[in-house]
Amino acid sequence: MAKPKQKEFGVGIIGYSIGRVHAHGWQGVGEVFHPAKAKARLVALSGRTKERVQLEAQRYGFQRIYTDWRKLVADDEVDIVDNCAPPYMHAEATIAAAEKGKDLICEKPMARSATEAHQMLRSAEKAGVAHMVGYNYRFVPAVALAKQIIEEGRLGKLYYYKGSYLNSYAHYESPETPFDWHHSSELSGYGALGDLGTHAIDMARFLVGEVKSVQSMSRNFVNSRPDKRGSSKKVKVDVDDVTVSVLSLKNGAVGLLEASWMTPGRRDFLAFEAHGSKGSLMFNLERLNELEVYLPGEDPKLEGPRNVLVLGKEHPFMTRYWANQAGGFSWENSFTNELNHYLECLVDGRSVSPQGASFLDGYRNCLIMDSIVESAKKGKRVEIEG
Amino acid sequence: MAKPKQKEFGVGIIGYSIGRVHAHGWQGVGEVFHPAKAKARLVALSGRTKERVQLEAQRYGFQRIYTDWRKLVADDEVDIVDNCAPPYMHAEATIAAAEKGKDLICEKPMARSATEAHQMLRSAEKAGVAHMVGYNYRFVPAVALAKQIIEEGRLGKLYYYKGSYLNSYAHYESPETPFDWHHSSELSGYGALGDLGTHAIDMARFLVGEVKSVQSMSRNFVNSRPDKRGSSKKVKVDVDDVTVSVLSLKNGAVGLLEASWMTPGRRDFLAFEAHGSKGSLMFNLERLNELEVYLPGEDPKLEGPRNVLVLGKEHPFMTRYWANQAGGFSWENSFTNELNHYLECLVDGRSVSPQGASFLDGYRNCLIMDSIVESAKKGKRVEIEG
Amino acid sequence: MAKPKQKEFGVGIIGYSIGRVHAHGWQGVGEVFHPAKAKARLVALSGRTKERVQLEAQRYGFQRIYTDWRKLVADDEVDIVDNCAPPYMHAEATIAAAEKGKDLICEKPMARSATEAHQMLRSAEKAGVAHMVGYNYRFVPAVALAKQIIEEGRLGKLYYYKGSYLNSYAHYESPETPFDWHHSSELSGYGALGDLGTHAIDMARFLVGEVKSVQSMSRNFVNSRPDKRGSSKKVKVDVDDVTVSVLSLKNGAVGLLEASWMTPGRRDFLAFEAHGSKGSLMFNLERLNELEVYLPGEDPKLEGPRNVLVLGKEHPFMTRYWANQAGGFSWENSFTNELNHYLECLVDGRSVSPQGASFLDGYRNCLIMDSIVESAKKGKRVEIEG
Amino acid sequence: MAKPKQKEFGVGIIGYSIGRVHAHGWQGVGEVFHPAKAKARLVALSGRTKERVQLEAQRYGFQRIYTDWRKLVADDEVDIVDNCAPPYMHAEATIAAAEKGKDLICEKPMARSATEAHQMLRSAEKAGVAHMVGYNYRFVPAVALAKQIIEEGRLGKLYYYKGSYLNSYAHYESPETPFDWHHSSELSGYGALGDLGTHAIDMARFLVGEVKSVQSMSRNFVNSRPDKRGSSKKVKVDVDDVTVSVLSLKNGAVGLLEASWMTPGRRDFLAFEAHGSKGSLMFNLERLNELEVYLPGEDPKLEGPRNVLVLGKEHPFMTRYWANQAGGFSWENSFTNELNHYLECLVDGRSVSPQGASFLDGYRNCLIMDSIVESAKKGKRVEIEG
Repeated sequence: MAKPKQKEFGVGIIGYSIGRVHAHGWQGVGEVFHPAKAKARLVALSGRTKERVQLEAQRYGFQRIYTDWRKLVADDEVDIVDNCAPPYMHAEATIAAAEKGKDLICEKPMARSATEAHQMLRSAEKAGVAHMVGYNYRFVPAVALAKQIIEEGRLGKLYYYKGSYLNSYAHYESPETPFDWHHSSELSGYGALGDLGTHAIDMARFLVGEVKSVQSMSRNFVNSRPDKRGSSKKVKVDVDDVTVSVLSLKNGAVGLLEASWMTPGRRDFLAFEAHGSKGSLMFNLERLNELEVYLPGEDPKLEGPRNVLVLGKEHPFMTRYWANQAGGFSWENSFTNELNHYLECLVDGRSVSPQGASFLDGYRNCLIMDSIVESAKKGKRVEIEG
Repeated sequence: MAKPKQKEFGVGIIGYSIGRVHAHGWQGVGEVFHPAKAKARLVALSGRTKERVQLEAQRYGFQRIYTDWRKLVADDEVDIVDNCAPPYMHAEATIAAAEKGKDLICEKPMARSATEAHQMLRSAEKAGVAHMVGYNYRFVPAVALAKQIIEEGRLGKLYYYKGSYLNSYAHYESPETPFDWHHSSELSGYGALGDLGTHAIDMARFLVGEVKSVQSMSRNFVNSRPDKRGSSKKVKVDVDDVTVSVLSLKNGAVGLLEASWMTPGRRDFLAFEAHGSKGSLMFNLERLNELEVYLPGEDPKLEGPRNVLVLGKEHPFMTRYWANQAGGFSWENSFTNELNHYLECLVDGRSVSPQGASFLDGYRNCLIMDSIVESAKKGKRVEIEG
Repeated sequence: MAKPKQKEFGVGIIGYSIGRVHAHGWQGVGEVFHPAKAKARLVALSGRTKERVQLEAQRYGFQRIYTDWRKLVADDEVDIVDNCAPPYMHAEATIAAAEKGKDLICEKPMARSATEAHQMLRSAEKAGVAHMVGYNYRFVPAVALAKQIIEEGRLGKLYYYKGSYLNSYAHYESPETPFDWHHSSELSGYGALGDLGTHAIDMARFLVGEVKSVQSMSRNFVNSRPDKRGSSKKVKVDVDDVTVSVLSLKNGAVGLLEASWMTPGRRDFLAFEAHGSKGSLMFNLERLNELEVYLPGEDPKLEGPRNVLVLGKEHPFMTRYWANQAGGFSWENSFTNELNHYLECLVDGRSVSPQGASFLDGYRNCLIMDSIVESAKKGKRVEIEG
Repeated sequence: MAKPKQKEFGVGIIGYSIGRVHAHGWQGVGEVFHPAKAKARLVALSGRTKERVQLEAQRYGFQRIYTDWRKLVADDEVDIVDNCAPPYMHAEATIAAAEKGKDLICEKPMARSATEAHQMLRSAEKAGVAHMVGYNYRFVPAVALAKQIIEEGRLGKLYYYKGSYLNSYAHYESPETPFDWHHSSELSGYGALGDLGTHAIDMARFLVGEVKSVQSMSRNFVNSRPDKRGSSKKVKVDVDDVTVSVLSLKNGAVGLLEASWMTPGRRDFLAFEAHGSKGSLMFNLERLNELEVYLPGEDPKLEGPRNVLVLGKEHPFMTRYWANQAGGFSWENSFTNELNHYLECLVDGRSVSPQGASFLDGYRNCLIMDSIVESAKKGKRVEIEG
C-alpha cells in the first residue's frame, strides 16, 4: 500500500532508563496519530552498559547503538537528540547536540541548577533548534481537562493551589536502600525536590501560572547509604528527602508544594488541588483517568464534587485512544502525546510552549527549585526572578 | 544488529473495531516480551469498508488488506486467523479458517449460542489447531493477583462471589441511541449479557470455577431504536438490556451475576467480589490497577480492607511493564499479555488454558449464557450441563 | 421556666439490646425536635437478666424495670409498647399489648413468618392502635434524599435496582463463633435474610416500590456451632448464611438482592443502587452521610457521579442536627427521627406510612422473605401475593 | 430505683451556638458513661437573645437562663463555667469565672492572642481551678487510634506530617456572604487560621508533638462584606481567608499546615497525614470513622494502605458507643467523651492533659498562631518560644 507522505526525523536517545519510555513513545506516534504530521525513526541509542543498550535497542528497533553519547550526538542521521540520561549529563550532552544543530529534548529536571539550565537554554536559542523538557504529565487527559476548566474560568478567581508529589516506590524511607545517583547533589542537583517536586512545580506553572515567591523547608533524614544492597560501605547522601514550600503565585493565589520520597503509604502520588471563588478541582496520578470537579449547580441539595472519568471522546486526546474504556489511557501514552506534539511543533516551526514545556520552562522550573533551596537554607521568603 | 532467533507467525485479523486493539497487542508482544519466544507479523486486515480498513492497516503496518474475509482466510502467509468481527461472523469465518489449518483466535462471546460455539470447538479440535477466545481481562495484573490469592487459599472456603459488568458508555439507556448489531439477537446472540455479562462469567470461571446452576431474569427496556441518529425509522430490538442471575458454583459457594448497559452512573464497571471464610477481595475495572484485599492480621485494631496498587515488580506481569509507576499498566496491555501467551503456547504446543480461555472455555461460557436465557424465560433454576 | 405544652406518652421497652438504642432515641425526641409535638416518658424496661435491665434502666432513666414482659404490657402507665426483643418474642408480646390497647412498635423483622406477621397486623388493626416496624434506615438523611430524587423523577424510568446488606461484624464466617438465637429458625425465623436482608428489602420497597416476584438461592455454610466460645458442645444451625435473589419490581424494573453475614471485607454494608433512563444513585451505610448521584449535566466533558455530603440544611432532617458538620448525623439519630415520626403520627391519628414502616409494611416484608425462602427451596420463580 | 452515688457538678454555659453541642455532650455523659464517675447538672445558659436562649435552655433542660454572662459567672450553683462564646468574650468571662473559683472550659481558639491566652492560663493557675480548651477532635476514636499507633512506634521515625482544615460550609468564598464576627480580627483574633487552622495545629501537637518553627503565608481575598445578606453596606474584613505554613517539628520531622474556608470542593476537611520510616496513616474528618493505615506486612504482593473502620470494641471509646455499627460514632459524641474526661479529671484532681487540651495547650496553640501571623508578615522563619 502507498504510505502517506510524512516527514520523518531520526531520533537518538541517550540513556535507556526513562529512555525506554521515550522509545516506546516515539514509536507510538506513528500508530496513535496516524497519519501523523511527522514520524520518528529510531536511529541510535546510547548507554554505558553495552549489553543493556543492545537489548533495549533490539526491543525498540533502533538502527544502532553507542556506548559513548558523543558518537550519538555526532551521528548525521540523528536529527533529534533526546537526552534521557541522569541530570549530571544533561547540560554537557545537550549543549554538544545544540552545537551540532540537533533538535533537542531533555528529561526533567533540565539541569542541576538554574545556571546550568540557562546555559542550555542559551545554547539552544543560539543554535536556533527546537527544544523541550520532558514534563510529560501535561499530556495526561485529566490534566489537560483541568487546564481547560481553569482557562474557561469555571473556578472563578483562584484562591488556593496545592501541588504534591509523594511516593515511596524507591523505598528511600529505609536506610538500607542503597545509594544511587539520586542521592548526590553533584549528580542530581536536587533530591526529592528534583526527582518529584519538579513535576509538581511544572503542574503548578502549567495550570495556574508563575510562582512569585517561596518559603521552604527541606530535610535529609538518611544521610548515608550502603553503596550496594547489604554492603557495609557507606556513601554520603547530601540531598533533601522531603521538601515543602509555601508558594505565592503571580495571580494572587497562595499555594503549597510538597515533595517526598519517604511517604510509605503513598506510592506515586503526583497530585494537585485548585480552589477558586466558584469551584474546585483535584487530581491524583494514582487514579490518572479521574478528575474530581466541584462546580455549584442549580440544585443545592445535589451539590458535591463529581468524579469525572476522563476517558470519553469529549476529553482531551481521547479520540486517539481507547475512549470509553476503563484503563483506556495510561502513563506511557502521555509520552506518545508529548513526542507527537514535539514533532508537530517541529514541522510547524513553533515552540512546544505553552502546551509543552520548552527549555525556558525547564529553566524557570530550576529557578524555582534553586529559590526553594535558598529559602530553606536562609529561613526566609525568596522572590523568584523574572 | 543481529536479531535474536524468534519464531514469527503471520497474523490476519478480521474486523478493525476491536481488531485495532489486537493489532496493537500483536505489535506489543515483540517489544514488551523482548526477546519473545515468538513474534507476530501483521499480514492482513479485512473489513467491509475499504477506506477504514486501509487507514487502520497503514496505522499498524499490515502488509495487505481485504474487504472479504474469505480471502484473508485463504491467504497462505496468514498462520493465525484472529476473528475480531461481530458474533454473527464468528462461526462461519472461524470454521473456515480451521478447515484451512489456521490457528485460531476469536473475540468474545465466542458465538451466538452454545450450539454454534460447539461447532467451532469441534472444528478446531478436528483440525488440531490452536484456539483461544478473547477474554483479555484474565491478563490484567490485579485479576491475576486475585487468582493467585484465591489459589493460595488465603480466602479460606469460598462463601460468596459476585460478578458484575455494568456500563453506560454506549448510552443505550437513551431510546434515541440508534440501533446497531448489538441490539439484534440474530446478529449478536445475546444483548447486554453477551456484550458484558460474558466477561463477568469468564471472570467467575477463571477465579472460582464452574457454575452449576443459574436462576435468572432479563429485561429489554428499549424495544425499538432509530436506524440512524435522529431518524424516525425504527428497528426492533430483541435482546436483553439488563440480565441478572443467581449462581450456584461447583465449589459450593453461592453467587450473583449482573450485566447491564443501562446504568448511567457506571461507566465501565467490570467488577467482582469474592468472600470466603478467611478473607475477601474486590476488583473494579474502572480502577484496574487496584485490588482491595481483606485478610485478618495479628492486630485486630488495625484490620480493614487494604488497597493494593498492583503495579510492583512483585505483581503478575509487572516486570514487563512500567513497574511502580502510576498508570503503568493499561487496558491495551492486557491484550499484549494475552497474545504473547497465545504465541508461547503455540510454540510449546500446549493449550492456552487455564491461564487463557480456550474454545472450550468459550463454549462453556455460551452454555452458561444459554442457561441464563432459558432460566429467565422459564422462571426456574437451570442446571448447567457437563 | 414554663414548659411548652406537649403530649407525653409513657413508653415501655421490651429488651435492652436494640432496646438501648430506642431508649436513646425516645430521649432524643425531646431535645432534637424541641418543642416536639409529643414527648416520651420512659416508664419501664423489661428483660431477662435483672442486673443488666437495671443498669440500662438507670442509664436511660426508666422509672421501673420488669423481668417479665407480661408485667410491662400490663403496666397502666405504659402507653406505647416498644418490642425490641428477638423475633421469637415479637408476636406474642405485641399481640398481648394490642389486646391491652397499647400503641405498638416492633423491631425488624416483624415476625418469623408472614403468617405470624399477619396475625400481629390483624391484632393491631382490630385494637385500632398505632403500629410501626423498626426500619430505621428510612430516616437517614441520605436515604430520604435518595427517595426525594427518585420521586422527583430525576432518574427517569427505573431500569435496575440492587439492594445489599453484607457484613461480618458478628464474624459468623468463623465456625468458632458461638451459636446464638440468630442461628435458629425457630427463634429468628430467618438467618442472614431476616437479620440483614430484611433491611435491604425495606429499602427497596421504600425507594422503588413493591416486589412482584423473586428467584432466590440460600446457603448455610456453618451448620453447627459451639454453644459457648471454646466449648466442644455443638448446636445445630438451620438458617441461611447467605441469601441472594433476583427481583422483579412492580414498576417494571429488574433487581438484585444480596444478604450475607459472611463477607469479611464488608463491615456493615447496607447499600443500594438505582439506575434509570436518566440517572443513577448509590448509597452505602458505611458512609452514611454520603450519596453518590449521577445526573447528566449541560457539559458532557464534566459528567460523572457526584458525591453529595448529605449534611446541609437543604437536606432532609438536617435542620434538626449539626448541619454542615462532618459526622453531624449518626446512626442513633435515625432512631430519634423514626420515633419522633411515630409520635407525630400518633398525635395526628395517622399511619406512620409511607414515611415510616407500618405493620403492613412489616408483613409484606415477611411475605417477600417467605417467597425468597420458597423460591430458594423450589428453584423457581415465586410471585409475591397481593 | 436507687441511683448510684455520683458526684454532680453544676454547669453554666455561655453562648448557645457551639454551646448547644456542649449541652448535648454534658447530658450524654450520664448516659454514655453510666455509671459515670461524675455527672453534670445543666444549671444555667446565657446568651444575648433572650428568646433563643430560652428555646435552647428548654431543649436541654437548663434550670435558668441569663442574658448577661456576669450573672451566670456569679451563680452559686454553677461549679463549671463552660465558655462557648466567640473569642472576643473568652478572656474576660473566663478570667472572671476563675476569680470566682469556678472550674473552667473554654472553646477554641482559647483567645485572640497568646498574650490574652496567657492571662487566662495564669488566672486559672492562680485560682487553682480545672481548665480545658475545647479541642474535641482528640476524642474521636479514629484520632485516638492514630495516636495509639504513633505511640506504639509503628510508623518508625516520623519524617513528614501534614495537617489540614479546609472547608467551604460558610461559603466565605463568595463575597456576597455577609460579614460576621469571624471576619474581624478585633472579635476573633484570627480568620481561617483561628477558626480552622487551630484545630489542625492541635491535632499536630496531640499526635506528633511540639512545633519548633514556622514559615507561613496568609491571604485575605474578600476584604469587605455586606453587613447583611443583600445589603449594600460594606464592612471591612481584616483576617486571613487562607493560611498555609511550613512546620518544623521538635521531633525532627518537617510538616505542612493548611487552613482555608474558601475551598468549595472541601466541606469539612480536617485531615492529617503522618509518614514515618516504617509506615503512614491518614485521616479525614469527612469520613470520621475511618483511618487509613499503611504498615508493611509479610507478603510484599499484598501491601497497601488499609482502610480501618474505627468502630469495633477494640477501638478507643467504642465500648461506650454502638460498636460494629456503621455510623456508630458521630461528631457530637466527641464532646461527650471530652466532657466526661473533664469530669473524671476533676474528680481525680488531675490535669486534662495529655489526653485533653489544657489551658497550657490552648496558650501554646495561640503562640503558634501568633508565630504564623508574624512569619507571614515578615516573610521569614519564626521560632516558637518555649
